[in-house]
Amino acid sequence: MAPEKQTYAAAGVDIDKADRFVDRLKKLARRKEHEAMWQAAGGYAAVYPSYSGNGIAVTTDGVGTKLLVAHKLKKFDTIGIDLVAMCANDLICVGATPNIFLDYFAVGKLDDSADDIMAGIVAGCDQTGMLLVGGETAEMPGVYEHGHFDLAGFAVGQVRKEDLLTGAEIAPAQTLIGVASSGIHSNGLSLARKVLPDNDETYHALLTPTLLYVKAVMEVLEKHRSHVKGIAHITGGGWTNLFRLNGNVGFDIDKVLAVPAILKAIGEHVNEEEMYKTFNMGMGLALIVDDKDGSPEAIIEIFEKHKMKAQAVGHVTERAKTLTISNLNNSNLILKG
Amino acid sequence: MAPEKQTYAAAGVDIDKADRFVDRLKKLARRKEHEAMWQAAGGYAAVYPSYSGNGIAVTTDGVGTKLLVAHKLKKFDTIGIDLVAMCANDLICVGATPNIFLDYFAVGKLDDSADDIMAGIVAGCDQTGMLLVGGETAEMPGVYEHGHFDLAGFAVGQVRKEDLLTGAEIAPAQTLIGVASSGIHSNGLSLARKVLPDNDETYHALLTPTLLYVKAVMEVLEKHRSHVKGIAHITGGGWTNLFRLNGNVGFDIDKVLAVPAILKAIGEHVNEEEMYKTFNMGMGLALIVDDKDGSPEAIIEIFEKHKMKAQAVGHVTERAKTLTISNLNNSNLILKG
Repeated sequence: MAPEKQTYAAAGVDIDKADRFVDRLKKLARRKEHEAMWQAAGGYAAVYPSYSGNGIAVTTDGVGTKLLVAHKLKKFDTIGIDLVAMCANDLICVGATPNIFLDYFAVGKLDDSADDIMAGIVAGCDQTGMLLVGGETAEMPGVYEHGHFDLAGFAVGQVRKEDLLTGAEIAPAQTLIGVASSGIHSNGLSLARKVLPDNDETYHALLTPTLLYVKAVMEVLEKHRSHVKGIAHITGGGWTNLFRLNGNVGFDIDKVLAVPAILKAIGEHVNEEEMYKTFNMGMGLALIVDDKDGSPEAIIEIFEKHKMKAQAVGHVTERAKTLTISNLNNSNLILKG
Repeated sequence: MAPEKQTYAAAGVDIDKADRFVDRLKKLARRKEHEAMWQAAGGYAAVYPSYSGNGIAVTTDGVGTKLLVAHKLKKFDTIGIDLVAMCANDLICVGATPNIFLDYFAVGKLDDSADDIMAGIVAGCDQTGMLLVGGETAEMPGVYEHGHFDLAGFAVGQVRKEDLLTGAEIAPAQTLIGVASSGIHSNGLSLARKVLPDNDETYHALLTPTLLYVKAVMEVLEKHRSHVKGIAHITGGGWTNLFRLNGNVGFDIDKVLAVPAILKAIGEHVNEEEMYKTFNMGMGLALIVDDKDGSPEAIIEIFEKHKMKAQAVGHVTERAKTLTISNLNNSNLILKG
């Protein structure tokens, strides 16, 4: 008998319930003044028009239960890189240049791990060109116990109107470029911890920091902005993140990047569709580019120069909100948005 | 025998240790590019120069262990107001207009309290004119248990160069205007909970939401900007927050605002100096204004129009980092910065 396959919901995280909550919240928060906000592809960042007509792009995120992995190993010097990455990789998806970062760090009682955590945040900022300009350090005995803590990050960038990525120019036949991830990044950790063996080897693999795509993407946008039609940071929701960019198209993917060993190990306990709807499956960032002037090749070269693996993985189709992954274990997988 | 007096450190919060951590962090994060940041009075917000030469003002904060008070009463509809207030009241201290807000909300498992929390955040934003433009809702089983959660807020505003409050124009003889608080606001809750009786009456008083000074201050700045030399949000550190505005001056305060009953109750267990160094003591916001053209009276009238109690409480002196509170229980209290 095959082992029972696990799901994200069974790991204690009910994404549908969370989505309903976010929908209610959006209705509650909606004001007429929101109409002045710029509409950016995928909602990866909110973009507010400044006094001068440029866009102020903002985003916030945490690292989820990857915290518990750091806690288990008592290794705290890289979780700050994940925090910066979760925010900064979102900002670049709207075409913004990340400028500044603030952190919220809450803990029961400050101890030596705090310095390691902050060193990671600073290292992450350095990898993006962002400045750490402030933050809040909160000692909250009674909320956080037994060495637990939480981290939230907040990143601000700027984007000129003409550089905003709206997703509106995404069209069938354009090329989808995938950029390799370093592992699980910072999503799906609750499910991973539930199905994987409880040992140091597992935790070390899970703790591998999220890749920061900022400097490579900044160079891509500087040199090839007109060819880039959309950028998706592959986070919670896995490859369905692609559907966020434009609701009128779909994707055929036939040359997948290598799946990291840690995700393969999870895949032994989780069905394939759930895997692609939860994890990055080796593709931490995806770009949609047109095919003019050899732009896909030129863009891939820039990622390689930045020591990142990138390749054309497929193309845009006219089948709205349908993602077909072919040649996968000799069968096709179809995800719907 | 007098009852033993309590301190903030005894309540599990070591401010000196936290200050040393923040000093180390500042050194670690410091980059040459920080020199381009605008220097705003008190460091209440970081101000980054935008492409067009305006300032983007940003701040982050939480509500500390006021969360535990909400949790105790199972009353969650106002803690979001505190969250917004802790951020927005900081932004106005640099002269910025708050524009947008994002929240980070982390919880073990989403339940009905989440909607109440968010309703409070939206109500707070409405009281400031800010838009809630995004946020992160994180379900983190294993980090947060037994209904616990955490909240962090991020606020962004804008300030024109000529409107930035730098504190440089603060000078002896200027008037200090105090604006009344609504109670304990969102600082010193760990100490308060330690010394006060553990009952619903206590918790209801502690839960009174922090006042939002934004709209009143926006009107003050619009009409009397040239007379306003500094604004201090009285948060952790109590009245020593005044020293943040300008290190070369001190303050004489001789007409204090009424101390809220909840702070009086805490004062029965905590010595007076500790009280003024920890709590707002009835003054949630302080403004330093010059005395030209009857500006203090005109500014006080604006606060009264906004249903806030405000009065001239004292003046600036040349005794650097020295705050003298006179006529207090027939004696003087002197705080040093």
